[in-house]
Amino acid sequence: MEKTAREVFARGKVYTDLALEARESAGDEAGRIPGVKIREKEKKGIRVTSVEVTDKRGEEAIGKPAGLYVTLEAGRLREKDPKGNRAVAEELSFYIRELLKAAGSPDSVLVVGLGNHEVTPDSLGPRVLDNLKISGHLKEKGPGASVSGIVPGVMAQTGMETARIIHGIVKETRPGAVLAIDALAARSVSRLGTAIQLSSTGIRPGSGVGNHRHSLTEESLGVPVIALGVPTVVAAAAIVYDTLDSLAELLKAAGADGQAGAVECMGPEERYQMVRELIEPRLGPMYVTPGNIDEQVKLLSFVLSEGINLALSE
Amino acid sequence: MEKTAREVFARGKVYTDLALEARESAGDEAGRIPGVKIREKEKKGIRVTSVEVTDKRGEEAIGKPAGLYVTLEAGRLREKDPKGNRAVAEELSFYIRELLKAAGSPDSVLVVGLGNHEVTPDSLGPRVLDNLKISGHLKEKGPGASVSGIVPGVMAQTGMETARIIHGIVKETRPGAVLAIDALAARSVSRLGTAIQLSSTGIRPGSGVGNHRHSLTEESLGVPVIALGVPTVVAAAAIVYDTLDSLAELLKAAGADGQAGAVECMGPEERYQMVRELIEPRLGPMYVTPGNIDEQVKLLSFVLSEGINLALSE
Amino acid sequence: MEKTAREVFARGKVYTDLALEARESAGDEAGRIPGVKIREKEKKGIRVTSVEVTDKRGEEAIGKPAGLYVTLEAGRLREKDPKGNRAVAEELSFYIRELLKAAGSPDSVLVVGLGNHEVTPDSLGPRVLDNLKISGHLKEKGPGASVSGIVPGVMAQTGMETARIIHGIVKETRPGAVLAIDALAARSVSRLGTAIQLSSTGIRPGSGVGNHRHSLTEESLGVPVIALGVPTVVAAAAIVYDTLDSLAELLKAAGADGQAGAVECMGPEERYQMVRELIEPRLGPMYVTPGNIDEQVKLLSFVLSEGINLALSE
Amino acid sequence: MEKTAREVFARGKVYTDLALEARESAGDEAGRIPGVKIREKEKKGIRVTSVEVTDKRGEEAIGKPAGLYVTLEAGRLREKDPKGNRAVAEELSFYIRELLKAAGSPDSVLVVGLGNHEVTPDSLGPRVLDNLKISGHLKEKGPGASVSGIVPGVMAQTGMETARIIHGIVKETRPGAVLAIDALAARSVSRLGTAIQLSSTGIRPGSGVGNHRHSLTEESLGVPVIALGVPTVVAAAAIVYDTLDSLAELLKAAGADGQAGAVECMGPEERYQMVRELIEPRLGPMYVTPGNIDEQVKLLSFVLSEGINLALSE
Repeated sequence: MEKTAREVFARGKVYTDLALEARESAGDEAGRIPGVKIREKEKKGIRVTSVEVTDKRGEEAIGKPAGLYVTLEAGRLREKDPKGNRAVAEELSFYIRELLKAAGSPDSVLVVGLGNHEVTPDSLGPRVLDNLKISGHLKEKGPGASVSGIVPGVMAQTGMETARIIHGIVKETRPGAVLAIDALAARSVSRLGTAIQLSSTGIRPGSGVGNHRHSLTEESLGVPVIALGVPTVVAAAAIVYDTLDSLAELLKAAGADGQAGAVECMGPEERYQMVRELIEPRLGPMYVTPGNIDEQVKLLSFVLSEGINLALSE
Repeated sequence: MEKTAREVFARGKVYTDLALEARESAGDEAGRIPGVKIREKEKKGIRVTSVEVTDKRGEEAIGKPAGLYVTLEAGRLREKDPKGNRAVAEELSFYIRELLKAAGSPDSVLVVGLGNHEVTPDSLGPRVLDNLKISGHLKEKGPGASVSGIVPGVMAQTGMETARIIHGIVKETRPGAVLAIDALAARSVSRLGTAIQLSSTGIRPGSGVGNHRHSLTEESLGVPVIALGVPTVVAAAAIVYDTLDSLAELLKAAGADGQAGAVECMGPEERYQMVRELIEPRLGPMYVTPGNIDEQVKLLSFVLSEGINLALSE
Repeated sequence: MEKTAREVFARGKVYTDLALEARESAGDEAGRIPGVKIREKEKKGIRVTSVEVTDKRGEEAIGKPAGLYVTLEAGRLREKDPKGNRAVAEELSFYIRELLKAAGSPDSVLVVGLGNHEVTPDSLGPRVLDNLKISGHLKEKGPGASVSGIVPGVMAQTGMETARIIHGIVKETRPGAVLAIDALAARSVSRLGTAIQLSSTGIRPGSGVGNHRHSLTEESLGVPVIALGVPTVVAAAAIVYDTLDSLAELLKAAGADGQAGAVECMGPEERYQMVRELIEPRLGPMYVTPGNIDEQVKLLSFVLSEGINLALSE
Repeated sequence: MEKTAREVFARGKVYTDLALEARESAGDEAGRIPGVKIREKEKKGIRVTSVEVTDKRGEEAIGKPAGLYVTLEAGRLREKDPKGNRAVAEELSFYIRELLKAAGSPDSVLVVGLGNHEVTPDSLGPRVLDNLKISGHLKEKGPGASVSGIVPGVMAQTGMETARIIHGIVKETRPGAVLAIDALAARSVSRLGTAIQLSSTGIRPGSGVGNHRHSLTEESLGVPVIALGVPTVVAAAAIVYDTLDSLAELLKAAGADGQAGAVECMGPEERYQMVRELIEPRLGPMYVTPGNIDEQVKLLSFVLSEGINLALSE
């Protein structure tokens, strides 16, 4: 989790793993973005947003590779609400199946639990694997796909790039697809533990909680890679940056325009520059996370593993 | 870990568990504070600061009850440096013995591991207990004190106030003293994982990482209580507050005095007020913690348990 | 888990925590035992046996204090069968409620997770607590009883008798009843992971997996104590003893009566004596446990915590 | 841990992972075995036995492939004795270096922690990895070899053969050698937690605690494989078998020769046959393990990781 301010402020924007958030800071008043198709619906209190990046313009605009990004938002994910969580798991399983179909309905899937079991906000991936129905070793083939799983650990534990470990295992066992679970970094604390993102584009360098993420993509592994994650942290630098915005608004509201100018008149670039000076090197590797992160991650891992089990085992 | 902004900004100051930091924001140019005696020394690269609060004036000034606060600072605590860590453990054991002497050299000590094993930054106390030499149940009395230990868990796990659990156990087993280990909240990220604080005053409500701390003091338990802790988090609100300071300085440095005024001319109270507005309710329960917190806590728990074992078992 | 052969062969019989098994080795051909009432029924593939010890004769005969012992047996407990396990949890919750009614329908219950989280077969109690719905600290009173919970650890970890820790907490927090969860030692490997025993008599010295069990009873704690457990180990000595029986039968079957005599003509007492010589001191502290004990304990802890949650929270 | 009686009684002998034990049940009165060279020495209370299988006759006699097997025995391994354990770790590091030299002094080593972190007696491998100094990812090359490590998990967790996972990682990262840590099955309970075996022959199918072991050898991986392990379990079947021996002796001693005949006159093969009938299917998958296995495994994992760190990092 040693992300540098450079990574945090990738391309003149505060970095986020969520296409949902990346698109918010792009687009015109109407939220239109060339090369990006957005669909939204709400069902049983679950808000589903599909962000489809169709071409280079879209990639440029939101800083994510072309592909489909589906986000499920459900505030209830935070409560211990078996019915509600079950509904989310079922909705999730629907979209996992959709992405697997698009990936050619593979009859075997390797589920990869990225992250560090020892660091609560980074333990989502390993915890999901704890509750997964593994069938890859069973003689009699059940319904659904044959499921195998691996928790590769992080570089500080293995001394190896996680991507190489997965690459070796994929080449050896040749699954039909990879489903990579990862804890994500969000832009806004309001998304922590409440948004589940599925994407057809796999894992990109620099994404996820921590810097132990290297490319896990169809190009690098030779099989389709679906990424599934939930934001559990926000970069401390992002919080600081927000302060400048809030401050400007506050002063403005206070009718202190002239005085606020110092902040207001700074363009985004200047602000990032200032925040970098404000935070480096103190806050570079720092993360903001909720106090009850353990309960959130525990609950999320159950919902995600249930969604995966529904999608793969039935 | 649900501290409110009100707690974070206790008494018009950003809250810190470290007397060391509390005293920094008090005092005159020369750092003199009425009712507070400060002694500093450096040995083997370990900086030891004793803050003794002698009367009401001191309590008022730094917001800590009268008593002795000893802080060991050693940057090397961050590295895997057996020799260096051993040196810190030995220095720590010296001061534990000093405080035990002042507590009447009890022949039995109950070590309490406060916090939540499931939340990495809050797991310091439970982890220290994992490596403790427990002797309370042994027939043949060895050298040093008879050591018992308990990890009471947190309220969300037990449904009981931790203080009441400890109170019940102390009344039943009657140890000569209590040594309470706790993860602390610091004011500055530079102190995370680098400062060990020992105090003769026990645990106070609202201290520690999280709000599951109630009074563990000689008054409440009837036996001397020594508190031992290391900061593992900083309240997100504190980071935001720092931004305002840095911003003011930055603008000042930039010769933008007039414009900086908006921030500069605010007195501390106004600034806390503004930060409260900036952060509530978004950041109230949020914490800032280093990305490699797991390694830091693992290392710290070894050093602390070694220091305690040296002090109690020999 | 340092049980001695003396404990293993309590009162001239191989020790078992299950009243079900204790009664099998007592009684006449018809299985009648003076002072013991036995009721059996089967429902949804769950076999429920109630052993009620009504007086001294019964206590003598099966070596358990007077009281009610209910055992639920369900082979399916071994499989990952959500429906089946749910059925067992519901049946269990029914009997927990029954015993709570008999204990005066307390409006607050302290659930105690006995055992050692670090030793798989002894981790049942602590694991059940991991999945318990704790409500003791909540302001708004929900339906059912107010639930608190504690994992006291074992003597090697705390240096204190577990019974004293619980005694102190009970005196301090005054719950209406205690529900003590414990891993048990069975007589026959066929019962490992398949039998759930509930009893109105609390925990007795020497019971459970390991020797860290002291009295947790209404007499010692001042509130009703319900014990809930599942056998996860068999004393190695019991296996050896069985070998002698099987051997005798085998030789007999082989028509080698004369030769078998050596074993056959030994009375029980002589056999225990011989086994003691055969096994002491090598096997005294040894336990027999299934290879997949981790999966069994994980599954059992879910079923038990679900049963308790149903009984206490609704 | 689903070993069948067939595996337990491999080749008409009770199976053991320890060459030390295999050789005890072979050999003539003088303990001479054709094709097996044995060297013994004692130093600082550590007994070191080298069993070198030089040819087919030796392989036949002790049922282990040709190669070097070094066993360190130190009763003190059971106690918390820092000095003593350090001495064992240093002795161990000496032999690890010897075997690495014989393997061509590789400048990079992949340490594999076999077993299941969730099953105490099977958790030795994963726990050793917890304390390993990993350097494979570090830019500046330190002294000694570059160390990487992996905990592949067991088949029930991954759905993949552990050997294939390792094979894939080795092919991808090309370490100079593999050091495989594993919990072993012994023949005698007196060896549990007291004997450390190092071998140049890697891991063989059916070895280790549990049946999740497949070939990890130079032939299968293409790089030298050193195996390091400590026995933590004995097959329940072995205990039963011992009972027959002890019984025969006991009866003999009791002058009951005629009667004992039933047992005495049975040849080894008949006895295994009888034990199979006695134990199958009840005890097939059952294991005997000490009650304090958690402390033993914790201590052993520290000693082994210290030995490896000394051998590889200096």
